[in-house]
Amino acid sequence: MQKRANIQLDWGREARTGVCEAVLAESKALAQMVDIVLATLERQERLFVTRLSADKAAELKNKFPTGFHYHPPSLTAVIGEGAPELAYMEGVSIVAAGTSDVQVAMEAAQTLRFNGYEARLIVDVGVAGLWRLIERLDEIRQSRVIIAVAGMEGALFSVLGGLIAAPVIAVPTSVGYGVSEGGKAALSSALASCSPGIVTVNIDNGFGAAVAATKILRLSGEGTS
Amino acid sequence: MQKRANIQLDWGREARTGVCEAVLAESKALAQMVDIVLATLERQERLFVTRLSADKAAELKNKFPTGFHYHPPSLTAVIGEGAPELAYMEGVSIVAAGTSDVQVAMEAAQTLRFNGYEARLIVDVGVAGLWRLIERLDEIRQSRVIIAVAGMEGALFSVLGGLIAAPVIAVPTSVGYGVSEGGKAALSSALASCSPGIVTVNIDNGFGAAVAATKILRLSGEGTS
Amino acid sequence: MQKRANIQLDWGREARTGVCEAVLAESKALAQMVDIVLATLERQERLFVTRLSADKAAELKNKFPTGFHYHPPSLTAVIGEGAPELAYMEGVSIVAAGTSDVQVAMEAAQTLRFNGYEARLIVDVGVAGLWRLIERLDEIRQSRVIIAVAGMEGALFSVLGGLIAAPVIAVPTSVGYGVSEGGKAALSSALASCSPGIVTVNIDNGFGAAVAATKILRLSGEGTS
Amino acid sequence: MQKRANIQLDWGREARTGVCEAVLAESKALAQMVDIVLATLERQERLFVTRLSADKAAELKNKFPTGFHYHPPSLTAVIGEGAPELAYMEGVSIVAAGTSDVQVAMEAAQTLRFNGYEARLIVDVGVAGLWRLIERLDEIRQSRVIIAVAGMEGALFSVLGGLIAAPVIAVPTSVGYGVSEGGKAALSSALASCSPGIVTVNIDNGFGAAVAATKILRLSGEGTS
Amino acid sequence: MQKRANIQLDWGREARTGVCEAVLAESKALAQMVDIVLATLERQERLFVTRLSADKAAELKNKFPTGFHYHPPSLTAVIGEGAPELAYMEGVSIVAAGTSDVQVAMEAAQTLRFNGYEARLIVDVGVAGLWRLIERLDEIRQSRVIIAVAGMEGALFSVLGGLIAAPVIAVPTSVGYGVSEGGKAALSSALASCSPGIVTVNIDNGFGAAVAATKILRLSGEGTS
Amino acid sequence: MQKRANIQLDWGREARTGVCEAVLAESKALAQMVDIVLATLERQERLFVTRLSADKAAELKNKFPTGFHYHPPSLTAVIGEGAPELAYMEGVSIVAAGTSDVQVAMEAAQTLRFNGYEARLIVDVGVAGLWRLIERLDEIRQSRVIIAVAGMEGALFSVLGGLIAAPVIAVPTSVGYGVSEGGKAALSSALASCSPGIVTVNIDNGFGAAVAATKILRLSGEGTS
Amino acid sequence: MQKRANIQLDWGREARTGVCEAVLAESKALAQMVDIVLATLERQERLFVTRLSADKAAELKNKFPTGFHYHPPSLTAVIGEGAPELAYMEGVSIVAAGTSDVQVAMEAAQTLRFNGYEARLIVDVGVAGLWRLIERLDEIRQSRVIIAVAGMEGALFSVLGGLIAAPVIAVPTSVGYGVSEGGKAALSSALASCSPGIVTVNIDNGFGAAVAATKILRLSGEGTS
Amino acid sequence: MQKRANIQLDWGREARTGVCEAVLAESKALAQMVDIVLATLERQERLFVTRLSADKAAELKNKFPTGFHYHPPSLTAVIGEGAPELAYMEGVSIVAAGTSDVQVAMEAAQTLRFNGYEARLIVDVGVAGLWRLIERLDEIRQSRVIIAVAGMEGALFSVLGGLIAAPVIAVPTSVGYGVSEGGKAALSSALASCSPGIVTVNIDNGFGAAVAATKILRLSGEGTS
Repeated sequence: MQKRANIQLDWGREARTGVCEAVLAESKALAQMVDIVLATLERQERLFVTRLSADKAAELKNKFPTGFHYHPPSLTAVIGEGAPELAYMEGVSIVAAGTSDVQVAMEAAQTLRFNGYEARLIVDVGVAGLWRLIERLDEIRQSRVIIAVAGMEGALFSVLGGLIAAPVIAVPTSVGYGVSEGGKAALSSALASCSPGIVTVNIDNGFGAAVAATKILRLSGEGTS
Repeated sequence: MQKRANIQLDWGREARTGVCEAVLAESKALAQMVDIVLATLERQERLFVTRLSADKAAELKNKFPTGFHYHPPSLTAVIGEGAPELAYMEGVSIVAAGTSDVQVAMEAAQTLRFNGYEARLIVDVGVAGLWRLIERLDEIRQSRVIIAVAGMEGALFSVLGGLIAAPVIAVPTSVGYGVSEGGKAALSSALASCSPGIVTVNIDNGFGAAVAATKILRLSGEGTS
Repeated sequence: MQKRANIQLDWGREARTGVCEAVLAESKALAQMVDIVLATLERQERLFVTRLSADKAAELKNKFPTGFHYHPPSLTAVIGEGAPELAYMEGVSIVAAGTSDVQVAMEAAQTLRFNGYEARLIVDVGVAGLWRLIERLDEIRQSRVIIAVAGMEGALFSVLGGLIAAPVIAVPTSVGYGVSEGGKAALSSALASCSPGIVTVNIDNGFGAAVAATKILRLSGEGTS
Repeated sequence: MQKRANIQLDWGREARTGVCEAVLAESKALAQMVDIVLATLERQERLFVTRLSADKAAELKNKFPTGFHYHPPSLTAVIGEGAPELAYMEGVSIVAAGTSDVQVAMEAAQTLRFNGYEARLIVDVGVAGLWRLIERLDEIRQSRVIIAVAGMEGALFSVLGGLIAAPVIAVPTSVGYGVSEGGKAALSSALASCSPGIVTVNIDNGFGAAVAATKILRLSGEGTS
Repeated sequence: MQKRANIQLDWGREARTGVCEAVLAESKALAQMVDIVLATLERQERLFVTRLSADKAAELKNKFPTGFHYHPPSLTAVIGEGAPELAYMEGVSIVAAGTSDVQVAMEAAQTLRFNGYEARLIVDVGVAGLWRLIERLDEIRQSRVIIAVAGMEGALFSVLGGLIAAPVIAVPTSVGYGVSEGGKAALSSALASCSPGIVTVNIDNGFGAAVAATKILRLSGEGTS
Repeated sequence: MQKRANIQLDWGREARTGVCEAVLAESKALAQMVDIVLATLERQERLFVTRLSADKAAELKNKFPTGFHYHPPSLTAVIGEGAPELAYMEGVSIVAAGTSDVQVAMEAAQTLRFNGYEARLIVDVGVAGLWRLIERLDEIRQSRVIIAVAGMEGALFSVLGGLIAAPVIAVPTSVGYGVSEGGKAALSSALASCSPGIVTVNIDNGFGAAVAATKILRLSGEGTS
Repeated sequence: MQKRANIQLDWGREARTGVCEAVLAESKALAQMVDIVLATLERQERLFVTRLSADKAAELKNKFPTGFHYHPPSLTAVIGEGAPELAYMEGVSIVAAGTSDVQVAMEAAQTLRFNGYEARLIVDVGVAGLWRLIERLDEIRQSRVIIAVAGMEGALFSVLGGLIAAPVIAVPTSVGYGVSEGGKAALSSALASCSPGIVTVNIDNGFGAAVAATKILRLSGEGTS
Repeated sequence: MQKRANIQLDWGREARTGVCEAVLAESKALAQMVDIVLATLERQERLFVTRLSADKAAELKNKFPTGFHYHPPSLTAVIGEGAPELAYMEGVSIVAAGTSDVQVAMEAAQTLRFNGYEARLIVDVGVAGLWRLIERLDEIRQSRVIIAVAGMEGALFSVLGGLIAAPVIAVPTSVGYGVSEGGKAALSSALASCSPGIVTVNIDNGFGAAVAATKILRLSGEGTS
């Protein structure tokens, strides 16, 4: 009953929405992932994979040595070949509050790369040491969209939103403990921000933020695709 | 102690972030609102006001018959004169699931208008009668940004996100009862959507969605101001 | 004190409510499960088991090579012999949003099978790619009851409910992360749906949905038993 | 902007799903309700209205003395004429735990009546005095579907579910205080019930339960319409 | 710094409150437990231990072969010798809804035994099969205090409370999944019960219920100590 | 449909459970309350009423000048005549942390009085000024059951539980704001208390605590009825 | 029963803890407040009152024209005479994010004044316009303790905590809507702050923050009393 | 991309805020921690590390045998040399309710030690046995700041706050199960305390409490640095 025919990927998604189909690996069994890789390679499509554990990735790499490409720090993978040429870096900055937010920031960076954009990655600029963010403001202001990544109390979102003209997409992360465990405190901060115009995605959803950024950049005619 | 000197509005906000200062009236006393109107008119600035009750508005209109303009269905007001010329309507669509979501949708529309954009307003296209949305898809697809407004279970966000290439900004509303009372169910739907690339603002925050849309439209060089 | 005499199964349940006694294995120790199998086989009854881990199942299979039957993809088992003849497939469709929802969908399918119904299983029709659902609508419309299985934001429930005349039983699943972790977002969507007439069971409770479907099908005189 | 043309009712709903369009009045302004009544009467359709306050109802009755019919104890109304002939009472029982649950029970009863079914209403059979329920069991067992209405801890759902072969649709109510305020405790009881096969709708949603019951009764070929 | 002198047990508790000092082992390191056993044996006191894992228990048994007594099904232990003579069984009944609630029921039974009471243990009488409870009612009615143990939706508490004159102490358990995961649904049912006079303790707190029962039994002059 | 015949009071409750039937007035309409008073007076029974607003009480007093007795500070009423003779005061103490908890404490006191016990009421002994509680300890220790009433953080429950041998029934109240609004903080404190043997009822449920105390006192053969 | 003798104020609190007894008026009836004023005036004590509505204050002023002093913007009152001489202003700054936070900030200011300290009040320095805070930093740095008052997302706490050496006491306020309604989002931000050393009090608890500041200032030998 | 250059520590924090930079190890990969140690040693700075597991600590000790110092009972480490001379013990007391709270209490003690203060540690003084706390009051009263550490229901905070003039910083811990699991009950108790002037930090945040205590002690000119 678990046979490949059951896998029904949305190959028309790019034509319809401007961004490729992607797969959330976390809740899928290895056998299901194998079917998905097979279906993709047979159709000679490209597919993006998120939240893929190192263990499952090793098994898939073993089975598909050429068509499967894993990127450990972001827990993402690309199935298929033929990456798009990259657009220039000024398009989008990914600004992460702390070292612990790097995995989610890189999920966003890899998603953008898959869609043809090379992001500028700026890490360790949390507001506890505000000078670190101020030092990088000129750089950040060159971007047309900002992805801001922060856990704990997520104050970075409001500070950035008050200083920058570009749209800010907040990605709350599950970094923290006690009341910030699981990311709810950072999410609330993004939604309730006193700086108007901040938009938000789900906790740890670097992928979703990058898809939204891609749609915004395409709108302004920037980049590939 | 409550004297006008205490009011410290952020007049530089437009220069810094591209959108004007605005004021949330709901949690402010009438005396505080009077000070804010005075401070704005003295500086000959323009100021946008949200969540202003009809009662407070009537008192302010009485005190400031010329410089204060109230818009009842959206509970918003504009202080000062000299509205910007409006950009054309293709820029942005506001898509609302039901009649009950109209106040929030209009808050977004008035905010856009204050910033120079005339939005297309499409109401009563909830997914319980999917044909109503399908009928309007071509129209919606002409916009460069979509603001989607829905309460209850917020399924509209995911359906739209899967059909449209433009960025979708979800505004969950507090319409509903039981588990959807207060808007938490619709907010969760927006954040957890299976359609990637949907971004979200706080419950009932039509203003915030419109500010984000303004930033995105300015990015692509569209519209006035 | 943990001796078999303590196990008090509800053998009269089928006579009283139309569906057999069943056992939730997750929170029971292996020794308790052994007692339950023994009690069932001694009385020559049939018993359905849900949420049984592969580990416990292996131990039970070892002890009871003939009277114990495990179905790994659904984590269910049947104790005893003499399965009922199956009714035809038009009775009930199980519609699952994604590959990750398959285990729960299969729990429902096995429960129906134990009660004498063969369900039609339709997977990967989430609303992010609405065409996949539209393509299968005619097929789904042949059923007299629909079990809809979805995690994340659960928009599938409302879309289906607006398109179909048959009763829709929603099974929210715990598939998702951030605000949808544990299934609360999908559950709220089912309960707050703008499509009237959707009914819901507990998160991941494919079993409960299938029991309700069985009761509804029996009501209309369909199927065996 | 608030003109009638904006009202987009789903007149095809009955053809598509077997039950008429209905309107939730609670979150709609009086002016919006007036437009809805006008639109319905012009098309000579029938429309069901729920959660309509006595105040708004009085204003509407004043404006539309013949086409608008309010039922105070259930806070529902019917717009238009030509009620369907009623089916016999054996089809469905509405079982309410206490006097405080009567408004919700009557919302269900009126919804069924609008769709052509006359329900048997059994009140004050909460499990604190179990004999009251036991006394009525034979009567309840004659129905093909049961709607169970209870607030506080909702134990009625599990007790009924263990005694009755017909499908049980639970309607948790917001009756209670402290941990049961708002109905969350009764909702959890319905979802987590140890009696399998109970299905649930949103808190206080007598309307939704009745729509589901209507779909189930139509499935078995019972009743009018 | 972690030396024994830091352990400050409340040896006067029995004189003051009528029940012995006890220790919650779950959140204590093995080294801390060793110090506690030593302090108890040196003073020739008796001490009751709850929520002690099999692993830690094995290590302690090894170190203290004579003064440490572990009871695996209840995860409790007794340190020291000289158990009190047991009172007769009519004093207290422990009524558990399902097999999964047995560990918590036994924690209560062992606590009572440590304080000199032998409880009657009645298992598998959940309300899904109400006849099982009705069959045992005469037996239960002989007790002066009832401890009721149930997870999932906890309907047992209300049903018992409506049938019995003795005080009922509810112990909600963490048995269940989805909305009942962790025991919150059963806890709410106990607190919101429509049967007045039910009192409750924390989730899984069989120990606390037994201490309260002990205090009540002592009050009526029953039993040892 | 709302006729008196629908009212089904549980007149056998006292015989079955030792305490009279009672009615929660808060969620009942005036017309429903009138029916309940009529039914009680016709049968010459006595009935206890809780959470009855002054407004409804005035209307009932007007209609039933002799058979209806309201007690404003506790928001309770007694329907019917023939109060039991009161037992002596040593049986039960009601200990309330602050002046704000007095209404709930008095609901408990009136419930006990209805069942034949006169309670000792001790107010304003919150732990912020511990000496006030210590001063009254000897008095409190003469009681066989303690009802402890506290809002905010509910520390009184744990302090009392560690000092007293009698059973302590905690009644958390909804006194407080911020995190203690609605009484959840006090409820958690009662359930999680480090003093074993404390039992709890729902927030503001002075009635339930008094019914439990009545059952405990009857068990020890104390008092009337 | 509600007679004055029941009021048991903690007159020894100042001797014991360094700060005077105070009374939370919100949950007390007018009659209870009258008793409290009488008890205070009879003993010639001073008492501080918080969260007192204008209505109750007017009644008390009427009854006690000389010994009762109300301060409307902070909803506080002082009972009795003989205010302490004020210490100089460098001791403490109260920094409030927005105009809507002024009531809570003033509750803190009046509490400090009652205890002998005159606070510096700095309003409208929310981080959406960061320059407003930066401009006032030198002034703020002269204080030995900072009370920071903010609602919505509470980002002010983290920004201040990273810039200032003095201890920062955060007061989250209930200003906001959607996810920040009631102040939970601001509270989480204060607790989860990435700037270490921030301490927090309950939502809207300006009084508690001022009491803590008083204790800290007394510790360093500053101020009167 | 994960190279050391990305680590941006806030070396100026001590000059700006009076307390050193510190690192939360829990959510950082080993490779990230190695980079942090290298960066610290190269600059010849000192750095404090919290929530570092024994496993990661062993790997770091191996790599940096001289510059890395781990303290297992508190899960903290110090990187670099040259500890400050310690101030005398009267400055600060750490009062912990139970043995299970010791790890968090020691995190606070080690943080104070890193900043130059030797704390007095008082354990096992929970309010279930109040005499243990009363016995130590004179000792505690010699301190200028108190850090109170408690899990479960956290009643210790209110009792201490009512007895002591020094400021009390509450650290709720995640010790407990059921409603106190994760520390939410203890946190609510600290925030809602009836003893005014208690301030709170995040659950298990012994580090944050110690940083606040350091800032307060420096304010009063006490201790080194």
